[in-house]
Amino acid sequence: MPHALVLRRRVQFYETDAAGIVHFSTFFRYMEEAEHALWRENGLSIFPASPTHGWPRVAASFDYKRPLRFEDEFEVHLRVDLLSTRSLRYACRIECRGEVAAEGGMTVVCVQRAPDGTMRAVPIPEPIAALFKPPASAGGFAPGFGAASSDA
Amino acid sequence: MPHALVLRRRVQFYETDAAGIVHFSTFFRYMEEAEHALWRENGLSIFPASPTHGWPRVAASFDYKRPLRFEDEFEVHLRVDLLSTRSLRYACRIECRGEVAAEGGMTVVCVQRAPDGTMRAVPIPEPIAALFKPPASAGGFAPGFGAASSDA
Amino acid sequence: MPHALVLRRRVQFYETDAAGIVHFSTFFRYMEEAEHALWRENGLSIFPASPTHGWPRVAASFDYKRPLRFEDEFEVHLRVDLLSTRSLRYACRIECRGEVAAEGGMTVVCVQRAPDGTMRAVPIPEPIAALFKPPASAGGFAPGFGAASSDA
Amino acid sequence: MPHALVLRRRVQFYETDAAGIVHFSTFFRYMEEAEHALWRENGLSIFPASPTHGWPRVAASFDYKRPLRFEDEFEVHLRVDLLSTRSLRYACRIECRGEVAAEGGMTVVCVQRAPDGTMRAVPIPEPIAALFKPPASAGGFAPGFGAASSDA
Repeated sequence: MPHALVLRRRVQFYETDAAGIVHFSTFFRYMEEAEHALWRENGLSIFPASPTHGWPRVAASFDYKRPLRFEDEFEVHLRVDLLSTRSLRYACRIECRGEVAAEGGMTVVCVQRAPDGTMRAVPIPEPIAALFKPPASAGGFAPGFGAASSDA
Repeated sequence: MPHALVLRRRVQFYETDAAGIVHFSTFFRYMEEAEHALWRENGLSIFPASPTHGWPRVAASFDYKRPLRFEDEFEVHLRVDLLSTRSLRYACRIECRGEVAAEGGMTVVCVQRAPDGTMRAVPIPEPIAALFKPPASAGGFAPGFGAASSDA
Repeated sequence: MPHALVLRRRVQFYETDAAGIVHFSTFFRYMEEAEHALWRENGLSIFPASPTHGWPRVAASFDYKRPLRFEDEFEVHLRVDLLSTRSLRYACRIECRGEVAAEGGMTVVCVQRAPDGTMRAVPIPEPIAALFKPPASAGGFAPGFGAASSDA
Repeated sequence: MPHALVLRRRVQFYETDAAGIVHFSTFFRYMEEAEHALWRENGLSIFPASPTHGWPRVAASFDYKRPLRFEDEFEVHLRVDLLSTRSLRYACRIECRGEVAAEGGMTVVCVQRAPDGTMRAVPIPEPIAALFKPPASAGGFAPGFGAASSDA
């Protein structure tokens, strides 16, 4: 029941731009790749064939520290750092050669379709909430960062 | 009832790669942008809110002649060059500053969901076929290329 | 010398995802499209053929309010809301049918290559700073939002 | 000195579109990912830090047989099927659960920058040509498909 994961990945050419570095929008895709790998680690798909719930993003951000370049091998450190009734917040740190490339996070909310067709925030199903619950002491990445997985 | 269209567009930064040029996969997105603009010119959406038919791509290709770069203004010349019972074939030429950047095309097939859930090719609905029917003489781009539209 | 711009745009099919909405990472591309259109409005390119300065992103964020869907027509409202010696901060609001789809921003820093090859933050050249300087009263989008331009 | 490679990969969410399947342009990115993995298998980078040659794409095509969906695990079978003085042609087959999803290929040409700044096709350096030379009998994928590698 990991609430955290490290995804190892290599920069693909189509992720770079004319400045010779990974486009800043791509970091959000890396964060989401790690999120979905974390869900798979927990035996879940965030978007199964017949979804009962949706998980739209309500906020996302990154601070960029160092560029990534073509073929760089990097790590996406992702963990759930806040679990509330209706939402999950992830903290994310992207590292390359032991240095921080970017730090950020995103918040996703659990929704279901109401009879009138609109999406409405609902409580996260208990079995899912139990899986992602961060340990009480979870603060910072260094200690207690249990899960490590490579999946691409 | 145009069967052809010219889309005017500018290269965006996220469409370039570390070689300083538009990534070759992006040309297929330009071709599709022009396709959807052509459908709109005909009062249609290729993917409406409640679609009765689907239009998956069964073939796509480009020959690349000259690179496109950031902020280049270019034109996507698209026309239906073959209309058969179940499929549409588009010819596409991308031009920049009067020179050909790429030439290609794609074929899309008309499908409906069968009772068993699979997709099955079906005849193109007559009103749609009538709109896209190329003139008998349509060959090459130069003459008979009637419609011109800018939409991005 | 506008410090703000409204970009009108239509959602392209390749910008959507399997949830039927524009992927959250794409909003950052929309914001950057508007940024580059704003620079062009000022007679500048952010990435000219022989660049003397670079403008890497150091922070970017969005809060998402409502989804965008295929073929939606939307507006990207972008303005410089903070100009400091070495950096520019943009505020961005994306609207569709008069409702806010997302609000966010990004900060870019002005850099030059040092003799040792590393990038170093440098003061924004005065002519550029003069162009983007927000009016003293600029707060919120409603008043003083002078420039309006369509470019895609 | 493999001239062929199998890349194992999983569909990412941002690679899907509103039709619920991988966007057709993305297959070209999968093919290129496998190309670059093949070059790495040969100890090469197609775009090193100080490139002496460029490898622009001059043609690319796919025929699509079956859709790929979110989280599908698939294989990209890539091999050099034609090596000429100035160009390499790759054949590519994408498989999922033992079935062909798409078949295609692309041709890349070896270029160098001429004194006047333009790119000119030049002979492929002999050490590189030697690595990619397909066996005389190479035809079809089944036999003689030596290299297998997972890298993403």
